[in-house]
Amino acid sequence: MPKVVDHEVRRAELVAATWQVIAAEGIDRATVRRVAEAAGCTTGRVTHYFASKEDMLAAALRAVVRTAAARMTAHLDGPDPREALGQVMHEALPLDDARRTEWLVWLAFWGRAAADARLRREQERHYARWRALLGDMLSRLRPDEPAGTRQAAVDILACGIDGLGLQAVLEPAAFSPRRLERAIDALITAAAT
Amino acid sequence: MPKVVDHEVRRAELVAATWQVIAAEGIDRATVRRVAEAAGCTTGRVTHYFASKEDMLAAALRAVVRTAAARMTAHLDGPDPREALGQVMHEALPLDDARRTEWLVWLAFWGRAAADARLRREQERHYARWRALLGDMLSRLRPDEPAGTRQAAVDILACGIDGLGLQAVLEPAAFSPRRLERAIDALITAAAT
Repeated sequence: MPKVVDHEVRRAELVAATWQVIAAEGIDRATVRRVAEAAGCTTGRVTHYFASKEDMLAAALRAVVRTAAARMTAHLDGPDPREALGQVMHEALPLDDARRTEWLVWLAFWGRAAADARLRREQERHYARWRALLGDMLSRLRPDEPAGTRQAAVDILACGIDGLGLQAVLEPAAFSPRRLERAIDALITAAAT
Repeated sequence: MPKVVDHEVRRAELVAATWQVIAAEGIDRATVRRVAEAAGCTTGRVTHYFASKEDMLAAALRAVVRTAAARMTAHLDGPDPREALGQVMHEALPLDDARRTEWLVWLAFWGRAAADARLRREQERHYARWRALLGDMLSRLRPDEPAGTRQAAVDILACGIDGLGLQAVLEPAAFSPRRLERAIDALITAAAT
């Protein structure tokens, strides 16, 4: 295996291990030692890739974002713009175990970002892309909408998804797939009218 | 000072100190030692009131909830139901330093609740009351709405507020009061139609 590939594979393994530890045991337990254990490697290897807990968390979040984005890509060019937007939002919500795990990483991240400027810059970067994606999809749905009112429509979608996701992941029994689907539909109607 | 009052005052002082430490330095720094320092007391006194970090966090959150609820009470019976709902939502968002601090406690709480069943039960209790309050206010706004569709309307408001609050507290420069006000208005329109 070429060295650069090997490096990326090793790093990805550690990111996956971090992600699993955060989701299963919480961010406090995601120590260098615990991540090394979960990945079956030495603590030296973990510290070689991640200088700090913030590093680990930012890397775990970037992996979460990439994974979700990959799922969304399949829907971006669907023939019906409203249906496409619904599918993208669907991919963003904790509707199965994989997406639940992603949400647990987000919650851990936000809890830390509140007191960490570097993580807040991560948040800003991810959300700029996410809002741009939602804005593009809304412009397909309402091509004649003035750009000036688009921000409010994007806010409805982006904020609605965050609130839904966090409440659903903390109260899974209450938020059935049907309740989430109904909320997605109401949010799109609100944003698109 | 009667002993029971003294106990409550001491406890409230520690809760306030915990709250300030979480908001200023993050939940990780909110150790027994640091809270004792911030409150100007011994660590023994802190552990006398709070058996664990989860205890401290749950108490800080309850104080946040009570403070926000007290501000909201003033608006509940306003003559115009739409305006009253707008004011209640306004009180819930990080529109000044005090409310920003409340949001930092919520973010810290959610980050921990993801991996802690007891904190998730706290979340459930607070949200049952919050959703009931929003549902009551919506029923004044749309008295003829069938109860079956009320849940979706409440979800729009409650989820919208959470997403707005968390994004605004993490990107304060981007979320001007005007942007937040516009979002509140759009959420109410969406929930009430």
